[in-house]
Amino acid sequence: MSFRFDIEARDGKARAGRLVTPHGEVRTPVFMPVGTVGTVKGVPQDVLEELGVEILLNNTYHLYLRPGVEMVRRLGGVQKFMAWNRPILTDSGGFQVFSLSDLRKVTEEGVAFRSHLDGSSHFFSPESAMAAQIGLGADIIMAFDECTEHPAEYARTKESMEMTLRWAARSKKYFEEHKNEVPWFTGGLKSARELIRTPNGTAEAVPFQSGNQVPHPSPNAGPGCGTHAVPFQDAVEESGSLDSQAEAHSLGMTTTREMAAAKAITGATQTLFGIVQGGMFADLRRESVQRTVELDFPGYAIGGLSVGEPRPMTYEMVDAAIRFLPEDKPRYLMGVGTPEEILQYVAQGVDMMDCVLPTRAARHGLLFTSEGRITIKNARYAGDEGPLDPQCGCKVCARYSRAYLRHLYASNELLAQVLNTIHNLAYYLDTMRRARAAIVRGEFRLPSASFGEARYNS
Amino acid sequence: MSFRFDIEARDGKARAGRLVTPHGEVRTPVFMPVGTVGTVKGVPQDVLEELGVEILLNNTYHLYLRPGVEMVRRLGGVQKFMAWNRPILTDSGGFQVFSLSDLRKVTEEGVAFRSHLDGSSHFFSPESAMAAQIGLGADIIMAFDECTEHPAEYARTKESMEMTLRWAARSKKYFEEHKNEVPWFTGGLKSARELIRTPNGTAEAVPFQSGNQVPHPSPNAGPGCGTHAVPFQDAVEESGSLDSQAEAHSLGMTTTREMAAAKAITGATQTLFGIVQGGMFADLRRESVQRTVELDFPGYAIGGLSVGEPRPMTYEMVDAAIRFLPEDKPRYLMGVGTPEEILQYVAQGVDMMDCVLPTRAARHGLLFTSEGRITIKNARYAGDEGPLDPQCGCKVCARYSRAYLRHLYASNELLAQVLNTIHNLAYYLDTMRRARAAIVRGEFRLPSASFGEARYNS
Repeated sequence: MSFRFDIEARDGKARAGRLVTPHGEVRTPVFMPVGTVGTVKGVPQDVLEELGVEILLNNTYHLYLRPGVEMVRRLGGVQKFMAWNRPILTDSGGFQVFSLSDLRKVTEEGVAFRSHLDGSSHFFSPESAMAAQIGLGADIIMAFDECTEHPAEYARTKESMEMTLRWAARSKKYFEEHKNEVPWFTGGLKSARELIRTPNGTAEAVPFQSGNQVPHPSPNAGPGCGTHAVPFQDAVEESGSLDSQAEAHSLGMTTTREMAAAKAITGATQTLFGIVQGGMFADLRRESVQRTVELDFPGYAIGGLSVGEPRPMTYEMVDAAIRFLPEDKPRYLMGVGTPEEILQYVAQGVDMMDCVLPTRAARHGLLFTSEGRITIKNARYAGDEGPLDPQCGCKVCARYSRAYLRHLYASNELLAQVLNTIHNLAYYLDTMRRARAAIVRGEFRLPSASFGEARYNS
Repeated sequence: MSFRFDIEARDGKARAGRLVTPHGEVRTPVFMPVGTVGTVKGVPQDVLEELGVEILLNNTYHLYLRPGVEMVRRLGGVQKFMAWNRPILTDSGGFQVFSLSDLRKVTEEGVAFRSHLDGSSHFFSPESAMAAQIGLGADIIMAFDECTEHPAEYARTKESMEMTLRWAARSKKYFEEHKNEVPWFTGGLKSARELIRTPNGTAEAVPFQSGNQVPHPSPNAGPGCGTHAVPFQDAVEESGSLDSQAEAHSLGMTTTREMAAAKAITGATQTLFGIVQGGMFADLRRESVQRTVELDFPGYAIGGLSVGEPRPMTYEMVDAAIRFLPEDKPRYLMGVGTPEEILQYVAQGVDMMDCVLPTRAARHGLLFTSEGRITIKNARYAGDEGPLDPQCGCKVCARYSRAYLRHLYASNELLAQVLNTIHNLAYYLDTMRRARAAIVRGEFRLPSASFGEARYNS
């Protein structure tokens, strides 16, 4: 089982659900912390686990540049690489190519760009963005799209939307043809390869030794559990024929037996989501949804929002898309939002979100609390021995005073960034958890703000 | 009980001991991580506890400048400030005044210097350095000394040593007169103050309410346990008379009853160690020891070493001092060393050491392992999926690959500094733990190096 999405409760348009992926389950609505280059800045993975992070996001653009797709592939994929045995989602690289690099040139084929690290030249197409994401091995990957610039006129937006649709079809085609190359089982197969490679390089069967078990992922296991062992002999017997030498070679294998063993053992592959565009035009949003749904993805993202438009427009465009998205598939709104906004999107029917805001703001000393935003650098906190947020149960609020946090930040200390980030993530994750619990109880209400106290219902 | 040192085992000149302080016990030989401004850079306090850190060092110079002694005093002392309920040692500020600040002018009175932060002018004398350390409230504090520059001629070294002796006597005098001002119980007294201040500001007894207990430190409790509650009424009844209004006022109290309660509850104060100087001259080292011991401190540091002299000279000077130091008091060698050197010092009879090396080296990607130094940035680790140190049981080596650690460092990621530091500290602490266990078993031997495999014995 590579992917499943179950809706467990509804409350108005909000849903409480569960994503099932090869590396574990994710309860929705979910906020995904951003671990750009394979790390959520400053926070060790065990602390992320303690915080209850169930899925995080890695950026393909960044990992592609450093350490490179091949390195991550060789090491068995991003989960093994960053020692995170829970689900990961990668974006396609499209957004960073537009926002981070210089000298971009967009053609039908794809995007030529220069690395922001060293100026070297690169090219992303739907095909190569899929290849990169397959090599990286996240559980959920994204179609390669064009994030329409803002502002943009109707004709330009439509043209951009159309190209995204063509790129979506190409993304899906390449993905379906190559998804078996996912490197999750390289680690296990490395031991298999050792078992069956002879000194002269030919492949021969070597009797299976107890203890030399090939890791087998259990897609239905809970977060944190991803593998159990299957005897190599059984795996080999289950194997069918290989499609091509090229397929075997791409996995770094030298024998077709290894390749077959991998495919047989796992059965699980990644999941590709489509991305809806259409800028700030409701009819284009609808058209983008309908034509993307025709391609039949297991999940759909809404892209090209939170790019500078007024917030009411964001909400309007989210509505415009969700109205036509299939009810039984997850909706992923990319790149949002503040703690208040993410609840609004949940009320509109969004299941998944990601944003650098909690982590980036933390590193700049802006902390989200139940008492509002706190700019910890402020002198008023210098002697404040109370906790950062009296209503927060995270380990930072349980232990440290505002005075200490303020001192750390004012002293430009590493620990400021670490503790601030832990708290802000706890705040976001707590917000989502409480929202989910309220949906399950049928009591989900937005905090009184622009939208009043009434349940959001349209 | 403010301080005690018990020697539990000996092996040659090496000792396995136990320091007992107001905030807990410390097993020796001990390596004290440096938490300069109240944080061991990048490592949260709960991780330090997991690593088994029993005592850490804060720098008076740095805390004096920021956030300032008064702020820390008000918040109850460094332990409360940094939420570290275990022992802390502060240095006197003397060394940083010499090494970090510009425009130093030394007179018999003390040292005038400019802050490295903002150039403001300050002055440290033995008296003010004691006042600062009392306000900061570390369990063990250091006499204000002059760290003799290196190289230095005999006459200059002797002159410097003599001044250190005069400053030691002044340090002790001030400390004995003011040690009751330690702010450890301000926190508890704040609640007492709330109990007994009436609306018109006068002090009146208010019946004790269950739950309003004043924290009471238990000096004999193990690391991590520092307080138990004592009913306020009992504390008040135990109180004696106050020495002065000034004494009460310096604790931020407004009633003599509060002051009395604090003194009665605690009984515990800080411990002042003397520092031996004498440069690179064995006879001056001996004289410094003998005349410092005449002042009768509970513990003695050896200062002015590891300042650029050849390592054999360091060992010679350590020997020269230890030969005359009292056997039953702890010996603290300041500012050392590498993992190999710290074992050498243990063999010579040193009980306590501190150094920025493990933490600073970590932040620069230099990692200490059982396989030798590893410069993690090196490209040879880019694809190395093995643990950093196969023999290390720390959480970094248990989870992450060298490839990932290398990636983090090459990407200039915060997590590199955090994880590297955790490992290096684990390595140092492990080294000390194993040395102590060997001493207890009578099997302490230096690893074969410059000193051969024989037990160090002279």
